[in-house]
Amino acid sequence: MKKLFIAAAALCAVGHAYAQKTPADYVNPFIGTSNYGTTQPGPLVPQGMVSMSPFNTIPRPEHKVHTDSWCSTPYVWDNKWMIGFTNVNLSGVGCPDLGSLILMPTTGPLEVDFQKYASPLENQVAKAGYYSAKISAYDVLAEMTATTRTSRSRYTFPAGESHILFNIGQGLTTESGGYARIVSDSEIEGFKIMGDFCYGVPQSVIPVYFVVRTSKPAESVQYWKKQPDFSHSAIKDWSSTSNQYKVYTRFKQPIAGDDIGVAFNYSTADGEVIEVAVGVSYVSIENARENLDREQHRKNFDAIYADAVTAWNEVLGVATLEGGTEDQKTQFYTGLYHNWVHPFVLQDANGDYPEMESGRIRRMPQGADRLTMFSGWDVYRLTPFMGALFFPQRQNDMALSMMQMYKESGNLPKFEIAAKEFMTMEGDAALPYMTACWFLGLTKGIDTETLYQAMLKNAAAPAEENRIRGDQSFYAEHHYIPLRTPFDNSVSQAIEYYVADWSLGQMAKALGKTADYEMLNARAMGYRKYFDKNYGLLRPVLPDGTFMPGFNPREGENFKPVNGFHEGSSWNYSFSIPYDIPGLVKLYGSSERFVDSLSACFDKGYFDMGNEPDMGYPYYFSYVKGSEWKTQYYVNQCLERYYGNKPGGLPGNDDAGTMSAWQNLSMMGIYPACPAKAEYVITTPTFDKVTIRLDPKYYKRSELVIEAVNRTPENIYIEKIELDGKPFRGYFISHKQLTDAGRLTIYCTNKPQK
Amino acid sequence: MKKLFIAAAALCAVGHAYAQKTPADYVNPFIGTSNYGTTQPGPLVPQGMVSMSPFNTIPRPEHKVHTDSWCSTPYVWDNKWMIGFTNVNLSGVGCPDLGSLILMPTTGPLEVDFQKYASPLENQVAKAGYYSAKISAYDVLAEMTATTRTSRSRYTFPAGESHILFNIGQGLTTESGGYARIVSDSEIEGFKIMGDFCYGVPQSVIPVYFVVRTSKPAESVQYWKKQPDFSHSAIKDWSSTSNQYKVYTRFKQPIAGDDIGVAFNYSTADGEVIEVAVGVSYVSIENARENLDREQHRKNFDAIYADAVTAWNEVLGVATLEGGTEDQKTQFYTGLYHNWVHPFVLQDANGDYPEMESGRIRRMPQGADRLTMFSGWDVYRLTPFMGALFFPQRQNDMALSMMQMYKESGNLPKFEIAAKEFMTMEGDAALPYMTACWFLGLTKGIDTETLYQAMLKNAAAPAEENRIRGDQSFYAEHHYIPLRTPFDNSVSQAIEYYVADWSLGQMAKALGKTADYEMLNARAMGYRKYFDKNYGLLRPVLPDGTFMPGFNPREGENFKPVNGFHEGSSWNYSFSIPYDIPGLVKLYGSSERFVDSLSACFDKGYFDMGNEPDMGYPYYFSYVKGSEWKTQYYVNQCLERYYGNKPGGLPGNDDAGTMSAWQNLSMMGIYPACPAKAEYVITTPTFDKVTIRLDPKYYKRSELVIEAVNRTPENIYIEKIELDGKPFRGYFISHKQLTDAGRLTIYCTNKPQK
Repeated sequence: MKKLFIAAAALCAVGHAYAQKTPADYVNPFIGTSNYGTTQPGPLVPQGMVSMSPFNTIPRPEHKVHTDSWCSTPYVWDNKWMIGFTNVNLSGVGCPDLGSLILMPTTGPLEVDFQKYASPLENQVAKAGYYSAKISAYDVLAEMTATTRTSRSRYTFPAGESHILFNIGQGLTTESGGYARIVSDSEIEGFKIMGDFCYGVPQSVIPVYFVVRTSKPAESVQYWKKQPDFSHSAIKDWSSTSNQYKVYTRFKQPIAGDDIGVAFNYSTADGEVIEVAVGVSYVSIENARENLDREQHRKNFDAIYADAVTAWNEVLGVATLEGGTEDQKTQFYTGLYHNWVHPFVLQDANGDYPEMESGRIRRMPQGADRLTMFSGWDVYRLTPFMGALFFPQRQNDMALSMMQMYKESGNLPKFEIAAKEFMTMEGDAALPYMTACWFLGLTKGIDTETLYQAMLKNAAAPAEENRIRGDQSFYAEHHYIPLRTPFDNSVSQAIEYYVADWSLGQMAKALGKTADYEMLNARAMGYRKYFDKNYGLLRPVLPDGTFMPGFNPREGENFKPVNGFHEGSSWNYSFSIPYDIPGLVKLYGSSERFVDSLSACFDKGYFDMGNEPDMGYPYYFSYVKGSEWKTQYYVNQCLERYYGNKPGGLPGNDDAGTMSAWQNLSMMGIYPACPAKAEYVITTPTFDKVTIRLDPKYYKRSELVIEAVNRTPENIYIEKIELDGKPFRGYFISHKQLTDAGRLTIYCTNKPQK
Repeated sequence: MKKLFIAAAALCAVGHAYAQKTPADYVNPFIGTSNYGTTQPGPLVPQGMVSMSPFNTIPRPEHKVHTDSWCSTPYVWDNKWMIGFTNVNLSGVGCPDLGSLILMPTTGPLEVDFQKYASPLENQVAKAGYYSAKISAYDVLAEMTATTRTSRSRYTFPAGESHILFNIGQGLTTESGGYARIVSDSEIEGFKIMGDFCYGVPQSVIPVYFVVRTSKPAESVQYWKKQPDFSHSAIKDWSSTSNQYKVYTRFKQPIAGDDIGVAFNYSTADGEVIEVAVGVSYVSIENARENLDREQHRKNFDAIYADAVTAWNEVLGVATLEGGTEDQKTQFYTGLYHNWVHPFVLQDANGDYPEMESGRIRRMPQGADRLTMFSGWDVYRLTPFMGALFFPQRQNDMALSMMQMYKESGNLPKFEIAAKEFMTMEGDAALPYMTACWFLGLTKGIDTETLYQAMLKNAAAPAEENRIRGDQSFYAEHHYIPLRTPFDNSVSQAIEYYVADWSLGQMAKALGKTADYEMLNARAMGYRKYFDKNYGLLRPVLPDGTFMPGFNPREGENFKPVNGFHEGSSWNYSFSIPYDIPGLVKLYGSSERFVDSLSACFDKGYFDMGNEPDMGYPYYFSYVKGSEWKTQYYVNQCLERYYGNKPGGLPGNDDAGTMSAWQNLSMMGIYPACPAKAEYVITTPTFDKVTIRLDPKYYKRSELVIEAVNRTPENIYIEKIELDGKPFRGYFISHKQLTDAGRLTIYCTNKPQK
């Protein structure tokens, strides 16, 4: 299959070589579908509630990644056996959820056991808003596209017995239970319960409602359900269905169960096309139907697809690229595309959405969006800056949605999906995220004091009353978190609280709230407690204040459990004090020692490009005068080594676009090395020229241009910098400086400026 | 517990010794709850859609009978651990179904895993329409009563944290899947899918809808659901809920799944009473609610119970007993009570009921009942005669319901529950059942020709078009069924077809349809093919017409699999030619040889009182002049040996009242030894006098009296018989003779009349 893809991509490139390619044409949705990128190739519109994906991560001997291993994506490029196309998905995440409501066309005698009806795919084509493949086992061509809250599939069948399966039982989510009702011979409705993302908050449960409609009335519509397993019981000798899938040939009342589905059965002529529309809602079946009625009213497949392409070109078209290779352009536009997958629209076409936590139905004002999927730990680092540059209005909408969650539940969230808090990963991500938005001017419509108090509540409420920081008593007093139990994430947790509290402290300072600032800043400076001079690294500390004995700074590599750190070793966290690199340098005693140690990360292979904690490392060299060239060197190295126009072209979980954002910002030569500080480190751009059309509601200038002069594969270093044609000193530039000036010109050279 | 029961029964007897006992007072619902009787002790009204039962057949080391063994009842007297009270049940059957919608009061921290919240019972009291017990683990007094389509429970709680659980996941039925919605803090609604009775027709699925309402609003109402088992998956290391019951503390949208439930949570004062009403429907949630609203409107627990007692006295009061012991009276009234459990009312209070097979909603005319639970193989033998004597109108209603099923589905059913055909056991039971009704005058409102054609369709339609007799090609041509596969039930199946076709043949004869009569009768005479003179028994025959080699006539005892016979040995079937005992005697060559062989059944222990095929055996002696005393002897022996006023007081599965009917008819001294022949064998009655109030719509006389003169424990033989005061010759009397005369007097003696 890999070969097939490359051939298809090559053909595609040839076919378009002389045509005018739109930004959407550059998108390659296969990027990130291997190497644990956990993105999916199926269609969606920007921030669509509905996205489709082939589901091929079923347990099979041939599959290395599957749902019985650790698997957080419905699709990996390398797998073979596919059981259908999901309608709701999370992209780039590290835990399984959603990835369900699976449509599958089949032929021949009806088979509903996914392990038995699974098929390989051939001739996969994935574009922005479109996916197609031949389903080998059935000789069916499957094409699909989407609107915000619906999907549309077009199946071309061979002659004979054909079926459209809607599998409600399988999926990524580890929550269970579904309900379905046959409405007519061309429509079913129901819901499936999803949620339990990352297992931290088992009470965070997400019901997803659906309506499925076929273009042709079926000859019969039949439920199926996995039957109980009686292998432990005398009944096993009697029941012919124990642990089997039973097709209900006559039962037409509503059905419910853990593992159910519905089959539409047809006799098809050769080449007969049957289309399927799926409407989804997080509120109700009625709303799922209304979403379908409104968004697909009198539209055929091609019109829906054309609308999807238009929508993608609108959001991707804010950036124009000159120079660079076709692959690099594809990487860039696909990276931007990945940043338009999450958050997604939660409210229905009529404005209904579930209130945070309670699930009660509320209604958004017309034209306003309730955005969801705040994967805090991932997105606070880069997303506000991507938003500021490429989609300020949407970023502001996200800030408004965050405040709405606060109003509804009493707290800014930590990791929210579909109005439920999942508490995933460490820290208190809303604080650096929202302060970044505030400093970047992306909190229009939000009262500053209300915003500040919302954040202060997370930071300052006593632990016992604190839904987000129930563990912060010791931290609040002592400014660090001791190692209490083996493999706890104490240092990682403290680092995230530091970043959060430092961010809020900066806002407190700006607002003249001196006492708050001092309290918060004092906490953030607590990181020094972990610094072990002997290692030049952060080391877990025991409750009595002494260092944990038996410290091995490489323990924790490859996501192995380790004392004090989460998903990494001490090396991956020890420089993650982005708000005080100069302070860290001081702890080292000399700039040289700091730079040597940071360089060791890269040169000795301690660095992990695939996860967030250390992804800022290459940029920290720029905090040491004379070492900026190392930023330029390692950033270039990382882009070349870890990124590419290929399924494995992301270094790890895309994390709701964060890994893609690292790529895009690095390719542009500007990177926000400190969250919540509206400032970029400047490095060597990839393209000769990137032009960003700026939103006039947010900026005086109509565009921002970042130019690279003399950029060649060898010229990876910065020779000099000009801002709006005038010489610019240093390697740091504020967001305001940059966007006010409108033009940043970077002269490149093959000689590092040591 | 056994001891406790006996003590309670004794107390009860003393308490009532000097009061006027009503028939309902005599009912002991514990009869049949041990020794595989599979009756239940909980409350119901006559033919109630709803019946309650403690559910204590969960798998536990202490339980000999439980749902992982073969278990077709929610309750056995001998078990200890109880998980609540079911609201829908089948009584006396041999396969698991229904036995679900389980209410349970508990106290202390909420526990929803049935294995963990199970409790012993103390002080069980069971009466017609009432059951109570102390739930030991929680010190809760649980009382319950019922209306036709609803139940009412009254729980007296101690002080503290209390719960009312509604368990939708557990039950006897092996179908699965439930749905529930929290309507308010005192009401839930939903459905559970049941069916798959006896595993013969997996497509026969029964949805049961419910509404549960509490008298006191709960402080919280919470769902629970058994979570998926991830023991085979990497997720096991992450999920804290794998294979556990999860309580949903915040989720309030509708829930669905294989194993779900709902908890109403309270703080109760000491002695606080909370009542729970459950409405059930086989049509819809709305109808379940309407049933509840209509049948419990403004009625308190005591009023509902009083109505139930009145209803029981109305139907049991048609019989008045004189003589006999208190235990015998209890046995008799409880036997009659068991005959009022099934069939039960299927239509809702508004008349809605599910159409046969399709499940489409139809409506009964006002005042008419659609009765369900036609357990054909069991009930065709005795039930029409019980109906003729004790409840002719209801029996006629059942015949009307059977015709309705025919009109809706195209066939008279074989084994119907809740409008679904389950094809359980052998034969074509509707034919002997309906011809019996016709000969007994219990088919008012049914056109005779329509009825005849309905039956003829079952009997004569070619196998490939025959939903009931898909296997009858060979039989129709050769008049027997050969043994084709090991352990098939070929002889049993043929015997049932013989009885069915003989019955219909009798009706054909009566209607002057001579050709039909001859065809049908010729089939019935095919039994001779199986008669092996060497054994004097029926022996399986191979397709080539020769006897099966290796015949062992005792093989098949104790329900072991055997070639040719179902649930029994050749001994249990070889005399089951009730329509042609004289013919069978001829095959034996001499009456003596026949009587010797039949006697051997009893004397050598081949006879099985616990199942239908041979239950007529004791009466077949009366077909041989001079051997009638053996009927009197063995019937008396069977009544003494297999029946009693105790939990083990039925010889086996009550089979929807059939085993109880054997007892009652035998105790009255009249037994219909040939199905569909409106005639009784006369034997020695148990009571001095049984007076049956006859229904004036069906009989000229207002009562039927059967007297025993000189009946003592020793006088078990008949000396002479008088009909309406005149000498009566012989031991057979037609139903018409008997009811026209109105008085049968049997003089008893201790000397057999040889």
